[in-house]
Amino acid sequence: MRHIKLLIEYDGTNYHGWQSQRSGDTIQDILTRAIYGITGEKVKLTGASRTDAGVHALSQVAAFGTGSQLSAAVIMRALNANLPADIRILTAEEKDERFHPRYDAERKSYFYILSAERNPSAFLHKYAWYPKADVDVDAMAAASLALIGEHDFSSFRGAGCGAKHPVRTVHACELLQLNEISFMTASMRGDFIRVRVEANAFLRHMVRNIVGSLVEVGRGRMSPGDLLQVLAARDRTKAGPTAPARGLFLEKIIYVE
Amino acid sequence: MRHIKLLIEYDGTNYHGWQSQRSGDTIQDILTRAIYGITGEKVKLTGASRTDAGVHALSQVAAFGTGSQLSAAVIMRALNANLPADIRILTAEEKDERFHPRYDAERKSYFYILSAERNPSAFLHKYAWYPKADVDVDAMAAASLALIGEHDFSSFRGAGCGAKHPVRTVHACELLQLNEISFMTASMRGDFIRVRVEANAFLRHMVRNIVGSLVEVGRGRMSPGDLLQVLAARDRTKAGPTAPARGLFLEKIIYVE
Repeated sequence: MRHIKLLIEYDGTNYHGWQSQRSGDTIQDILTRAIYGITGEKVKLTGASRTDAGVHALSQVAAFGTGSQLSAAVIMRALNANLPADIRILTAEEKDERFHPRYDAERKSYFYILSAERNPSAFLHKYAWYPKADVDVDAMAAASLALIGEHDFSSFRGAGCGAKHPVRTVHACELLQLNEISFMTASMRGDFIRVRVEANAFLRHMVRNIVGSLVEVGRGRMSPGDLLQVLAARDRTKAGPTAPARGLFLEKIIYVE
Repeated sequence: MRHIKLLIEYDGTNYHGWQSQRSGDTIQDILTRAIYGITGEKVKLTGASRTDAGVHALSQVAAFGTGSQLSAAVIMRALNANLPADIRILTAEEKDERFHPRYDAERKSYFYILSAERNPSAFLHKYAWYPKADVDVDAMAAASLALIGEHDFSSFRGAGCGAKHPVRTVHACELLQLNEISFMTASMRGDFIRVRVEANAFLRHMVRNIVGSLVEVGRGRMSPGDLLQVLAARDRTKAGPTAPARGLFLEKIIYVE
């Protein structure tokens, strides 16, 4: 049995997230069907991160075992020929059978794009959240410092989270303010903020709940210091609302080889 | 009667172009219906450029006369509240009734994005053409020089073009090679080329036919010098194929006030 590791890029707009569902319209379902079409095998495809419906990925990692003798390069080409245009295999390589996309991940990073503009761009609205409010980015940056380090993130844990415990280590939580975003070489002016979070692993909705809370701080509904109390409360009702999925991108899964 | 000038941004992916059609699913149709919903008037909406089905616009210009006393700012807000998210009014202002979006335009510019990458990005495929071939950008740039100036562009004129004559003045035809494109702050590596054309006006499919011909040169199927003969032939069958609509962006309509 050979083991194939895939690096996958997807625009999550039209899909019900990563994880297989009865509806069959998740990234995992579509990939599993495409692999069946090529190898004739109903493989167990394991993903590194369970992205929510509407969340995008720049490089999701997944792996499966196969009896097929097709090379990884041939499998990649055949998958790309059969997958919809908004799901792409970036690389495929053979790995040791001990490789596990989720357990072996040392760190993961996500970023979230939001904008204080009142009129969302015709091109960017599917990839950013426009809360239509002025936000104080300095206050948000100050608040974000409370999240760095090893903490119990129960206050930022979505209902139905299957994790064994709520402790995660956030290695970085960075805010970047931009007054333009480049789109197909055109410069789109506007008040954009990127929130990038790197952690050993994430709870369900953790980044979206962090962003929702940071926007509450940015809007002056919470003070930067409040986030320390929110964290200490270990109570989901104390944090801000869940930010919409469309602004969230799975950036990278980091392995130490 | 007041006259309102609109600057409009749209993602053309889901629409049958600018110009009104019986199907009713063009940008002009949708805008006209939205204006009717606000003013109760069936206005004559005149656009500056008739973009094809699937072509995008960063700033299309259109104007209409209205008996409504609503301010331009209120009309803009009401339109944006009622239009689909992929059609946005960027600005609205009152203009003299003599203003005509098309006749008064001094110049127009379009740009086209193409990529030599074999595996189209999940995010960029709707906004770029991937001919899946290696192209020689230096040869394309050399060929493009033939197009600059006042010429009879019959060889690049699409069937059904309603223009009175085929002479146009191309002020600029610029090629830019990029090894990455930024998408929502993420850098997407790849072999991209932007072709930007500025002219006093354009014939039907003119930019797409120019790009299709430049790609023939890039692939070595025509030599850079051949484009001079193609132009001189005034014969559409001598030029290359029409490049797909999805890579084309109406960049700007330029007025001299």
